[in-house]
Amino acid sequence: MKFLPLQTPNRTIMTPGPVEVDPRVLQAMSTPILGQFDPAFTSIMNEVMEMLRYLFRTDNKWAFPIDGTSRSGIEAMLVSIIEQGDKVLIPIYGRFGYLLTEICERYGADVTTIEREWGTVFDPEDVIREIKKVQPKIVAIVHGETSTGCMQPLEEIGKACREMDVILVVDAVATIGGTDVNVDEWQLDGVIGGTQKCLSVPSGMAPITYNDRIEKIVLSRKKVERGIRTELDQQMATGQTIISNYFDLSQLQDYWSPRRLNHHTEATSMLYALREGLRLIMEEGLDNRFARHRLHERALMAGLEAMGLTLFGDKRFKLPTVTCVNIPQDVDGESVRRMLLDEFGIEIASSFGPLHGKIWRIGTMGYSCRKENILKLLTALEAVLIYHGVRINRGEGAQAALSMYGKQRKESAFSSVVHR
Amino acid sequence: MKFLPLQTPNRTIMTPGPVEVDPRVLQAMSTPILGQFDPAFTSIMNEVMEMLRYLFRTDNKWAFPIDGTSRSGIEAMLVSIIEQGDKVLIPIYGRFGYLLTEICERYGADVTTIEREWGTVFDPEDVIREIKKVQPKIVAIVHGETSTGCMQPLEEIGKACREMDVILVVDAVATIGGTDVNVDEWQLDGVIGGTQKCLSVPSGMAPITYNDRIEKIVLSRKKVERGIRTELDQQMATGQTIISNYFDLSQLQDYWSPRRLNHHTEATSMLYALREGLRLIMEEGLDNRFARHRLHERALMAGLEAMGLTLFGDKRFKLPTVTCVNIPQDVDGESVRRMLLDEFGIEIASSFGPLHGKIWRIGTMGYSCRKENILKLLTALEAVLIYHGVRINRGEGAQAALSMYGKQRKESAFSSVVHR
Repeated sequence: MKFLPLQTPNRTIMTPGPVEVDPRVLQAMSTPILGQFDPAFTSIMNEVMEMLRYLFRTDNKWAFPIDGTSRSGIEAMLVSIIEQGDKVLIPIYGRFGYLLTEICERYGADVTTIEREWGTVFDPEDVIREIKKVQPKIVAIVHGETSTGCMQPLEEIGKACREMDVILVVDAVATIGGTDVNVDEWQLDGVIGGTQKCLSVPSGMAPITYNDRIEKIVLSRKKVERGIRTELDQQMATGQTIISNYFDLSQLQDYWSPRRLNHHTEATSMLYALREGLRLIMEEGLDNRFARHRLHERALMAGLEAMGLTLFGDKRFKLPTVTCVNIPQDVDGESVRRMLLDEFGIEIASSFGPLHGKIWRIGTMGYSCRKENILKLLTALEAVLIYHGVRINRGEGAQAALSMYGKQRKESAFSSVVHR
Repeated sequence: MKFLPLQTPNRTIMTPGPVEVDPRVLQAMSTPILGQFDPAFTSIMNEVMEMLRYLFRTDNKWAFPIDGTSRSGIEAMLVSIIEQGDKVLIPIYGRFGYLLTEICERYGADVTTIEREWGTVFDPEDVIREIKKVQPKIVAIVHGETSTGCMQPLEEIGKACREMDVILVVDAVATIGGTDVNVDEWQLDGVIGGTQKCLSVPSGMAPITYNDRIEKIVLSRKKVERGIRTELDQQMATGQTIISNYFDLSQLQDYWSPRRLNHHTEATSMLYALREGLRLIMEEGLDNRFARHRLHERALMAGLEAMGLTLFGDKRFKLPTVTCVNIPQDVDGESVRRMLLDEFGIEIASSFGPLHGKIWRIGTMGYSCRKENILKLLTALEAVLIYHGVRINRGEGAQAALSMYGKQRKESAFSSVVHR
């Protein structure tokens, strides 16, 4: 037959996602499946909900995955609360702010955007001033912008939204599991995570959580007659019907509740994968996990700077899971990326929009975020840059990273003769 | 830790889906992932498209999976062609006709439905007469209704729709890969398949195909400004914007085309699974596969009837992949199902709506559709029914199935003494 058994090259994936999947997660996916209403399966669903509450640091009743890629979670959250003409404020500081805007506009929201230059974030005071001015029903914002490597502080915005009775929806796809996303303490109402980044689970599920403020809106939306709703359900429903069936959180939460009202057929193997990814996180502990991400990020940054490269973006608001590097002048960034992939099997990312061709983006996420990967990348990048004729500080990148890992170089008069 | 390694009971899954996953598919999912723009991965995407064309028996340019469960494919197809007020005709003969109706109504279509009693299908002439009367833009219909075990003949309807320039969308979730779905010959414009039934791939992807008649509508929808559209694209677009971002086929086909415009992050491991499921189908050959499904369906039917049970629904239009059995009087159908699961590890399905509590539904789909499963089910069901006090023809079910498999029983004067 023309189509051979699946055979894939070895890759070290250092992009902002999808990243390498933990081998234990890969193994979990090869477990035979169960029927969706098999008690053995519904108890796995319940376990995943409980572990997601740990991940999101929340006591919310609702924490479950949407069966689709990350943006399916974003769309489910927004379509379930937006009614025609609802005012939504979206602070944009990179590409994924535009995605939030696009989704809200498609669903008929009256969207106001404010923007900051790519590579920086908002002063929370500026956002709060705009909320007071616009008086939106919803603020939607990205926590970590993989497009720019910046992370927006959310605590003050969360506090202000709660005080002004505004719903705050946060895209935490790039941060969840890699750096703190403290849903309850920061007073975030609806939060969407991603699997294929810091959870090291394949793309295909979007874990979300939302509180009773959002649930109240969801339940207020008029139900489509399905013949299995209670009278009470319909009496409570005065709002417009949620436009999407697939993303209707009122139906989805019935499916994830003990009522188990049939909606879709849960994606069994992906749920097995998510369960194992969450088990790995609970074993490591969130704080240890964040510290690990921070350590390898610092080693990477130290290595890149020691080589003589410069980093893009405001370091005070750097996203710990993505490091953006300015492409040295007169270098074809794509040629460097291609050589890293073809000769070393290492993948790093290019960039979008105004940064296209100007920066490389390097992810340090989940299972990909480990010492051997950082050192492999730094040494390979050095070789590729030298090959491309870039003047760099030879040998210094890996030494700076090793030093961050507690390895001090040995003094050697000889080395300076050879290398300088 | 509280959450133990994943451990699942052994199950023989004889429901109308999700069904047992082929072990080769399970293994494919444990392959390490690739980045979504890695050339090694995009060539896998292209392979899957080519194999899907074989599955759907089509030369359509577009054949790719939507990253979500089966209904995500249905919603993607419908939302991408329905504009506010579009007339849609939906012939309903079971539960999933209602799902089509619900989705179309949510997206603002002007829906006309015609209905047939559950357990039968439409005379194509009746549908064609209604098309002439309603003059819809779109007819949406279910090919195989798992809720009733019936299958709607589509050839005449396809021919009529083409002649009258009506778009025909077909939900082939329950039939694709198990019985013929001949997209081009039957003149079906848009078709949605499912993975978790006759493909024996886990739930989580929805393979779809559509022809240039649908593509023309998709391209006529006004694009959301993304800064990466060509002038020409926008000039062609005079229709309303597609409401969903996640399900926007115009963006999805750009992602699956050589342009590879970024949309979502493809669900890597599910795509590996689908690829292996499709490879298995190509190895077996579609016609052989349909014959296998038919053989085991017949063995099952013969066995059930030999036991003295009766089948539900019009046999002339029986769905070959689902067999519906009338629950004998005075028997608690759920108690039987529970005992099959708890004592024998076999899962069969209950039923919905007007058939609730009246029939069991038994799937013979994909990898679950094999001799050992049929025989195991028949012998187990006999034991469970006897335990529940049901009068059946003892020993006859398995013998009838064995006979269908070419095994003739040996004459024995003794057996009649013991059993009668």
